[in-house]
Amino acid sequence: MNEPELIERLRERVGLPRTAGVVLGIGDDCAIVRPRGSREDWLYTTDMSIEGTHFLRETHGAADVGWKALARGLSDIAAMGGEARFCLLSLAVASWVDARWLDGFYGGLLALAERAERAGVALIGGDLARTERVMCDIVVAGTVPRGKALRRDGARSGDAIYVSGALGGSALGLAAGRGKAWVRHKRPQPRLALGRFLRARLGATAAIDLSDGLSLDLHRLCTASRLRAEIAAPPVYRGATLEQALHGGEDYELLFTAPLRVRVPDAFEGLALTRIGTMRRGTAGAVEMNGEPLPPLGYDHLRHL
Amino acid sequence: MNEPELIERLRERVGLPRTAGVVLGIGDDCAIVRPRGSREDWLYTTDMSIEGTHFLRETHGAADVGWKALARGLSDIAAMGGEARFCLLSLAVASWVDARWLDGFYGGLLALAERAERAGVALIGGDLARTERVMCDIVVAGTVPRGKALRRDGARSGDAIYVSGALGGSALGLAAGRGKAWVRHKRPQPRLALGRFLRARLGATAAIDLSDGLSLDLHRLCTASRLRAEIAAPPVYRGATLEQALHGGEDYELLFTAPLRVRVPDAFEGLALTRIGTMRRGTAGAVEMNGEPLPPLGYDHLRHL
Repeated sequence: MNEPELIERLRERVGLPRTAGVVLGIGDDCAIVRPRGSREDWLYTTDMSIEGTHFLRETHGAADVGWKALARGLSDIAAMGGEARFCLLSLAVASWVDARWLDGFYGGLLALAERAERAGVALIGGDLARTERVMCDIVVAGTVPRGKALRRDGARSGDAIYVSGALGGSALGLAAGRGKAWVRHKRPQPRLALGRFLRARLGATAAIDLSDGLSLDLHRLCTASRLRAEIAAPPVYRGATLEQALHGGEDYELLFTAPLRVRVPDAFEGLALTRIGTMRRGTAGAVEMNGEPLPPLGYDHLRHL
Repeated sequence: MNEPELIERLRERVGLPRTAGVVLGIGDDCAIVRPRGSREDWLYTTDMSIEGTHFLRETHGAADVGWKALARGLSDIAAMGGEARFCLLSLAVASWVDARWLDGFYGGLLALAERAERAGVALIGGDLARTERVMCDIVVAGTVPRGKALRRDGARSGDAIYVSGALGGSALGLAAGRGKAWVRHKRPQPRLALGRFLRARLGATAAIDLSDGLSLDLHRLCTASRLRAEIAAPPVYRGATLEQALHGGEDYELLFTAPLRVRVPDAFEGLALTRIGTMRRGTAGAVEMNGEPLPPLGYDHLRHL
């Protein structure tokens, strides 16, 4: 059972949420909840960061781990065009963790929390435990105007497909262990302002953040929208390979679709926006690059289950 | 650095939440958020369950692990007198986990989710990853009428102290590995209806759920309320020792305070409510049982850090 299969199975089992106010459940970047009487919808996302899987003690500093843990959650809020409001952090520490590491970890997390939104993202709670490998789970909550969240399932046939920035930088950085790409890997910048621009100004139809690689994340967007995609090669981060750009994860750029009539600027606040293809009717989830099938080789945590 | 010290340090560092709508941040059973325009406050809590720490593969069935993971979060909502609304689950699986275990795990979790509240508690999202030991983190969100959440810091000098049920059953069950106490350990019943009764009908002044042992949790309630407590021995679960009742964790009963003038019934829906003592002015956090200091020996995940 791989991750999409498990999620589909869970979604079938859980069924449509019966609880009043749940707009969208399992399967998108965030769940969407509409509190009674509120003009805003609330977005919720959780992301785990595990020593040995998402980071290594030897190479990833405590502050980097804290920063990135939060960045992953913020990126999900960005993909829906939301404003991040608060977070909770569950942290399990290993015996090698000392007070200095903890200070560094929270320092990195709080540095991003203060910087990510003008009003800051409040750390309002969490849980603490002990284990053998450090792991944490970040919960981020954000808001969008009622009914306005950008979702994966909104793309329409004929929509143009875009990505922000250049891809493969994080994979390159992880392989190189130094240089600008390494900083990019350790300190991703969630695209919150871009996400809101796409939702509120541009009229994007669908979006997803590139956390697990373009090939897998585009496949997910296509599956949710019940369409297929035809693309050309995406912009590749300087020094990275096309493979890294297509299948390397953790770029945390945004992938989005917009109707053809929409004039998408070449850049937003200095970040390139590049058209890479078109959404088409056909086998839901299928992606072709330059006429050849592009398999979803991005990261699937459960592929070998 | 132990857990209270770390939490205090974090609370100082994070400061008062600047984000509009955050009513209560780090340090209670749940954080409290007031969405713009809403007549309800939202409660948020997260709880980790880790193989080897919170459960053992050999003795705890998959369905028990799923049930208890959610029960821990629901118990925090109960302690604040809330109604549980939805949850998110992050799950990291080890290589020994197969599809059958996953089905059992989600089956146990969803069984409680359907039963815990009349409207059910919707599972609306989460995250999946792979690791060496199974661990999960549950996020539970609930609601209370605006400004009405039961908190740890509301007790007043002279208030009577009560506990629900009998204590030590979970510790006894864990030690015995069989019998009714073992079921109690594996399938705790969050006291959601009781929590709402305490808040809405009884006029309780403070509450906390007994997750880490009476001695530690009462110490926490006293610290938050800046008072001390004088108690007698609490009701002991049949077959358990006084030690287990005082310091054993995971009973998930409620500990609460109420003004002396309040007539507290002997039982609520068949669950005994027993007065065990009185809140007093004095050293904040100090607890005396029968005139002797009662050290907070309950479970502290970071005591040896």
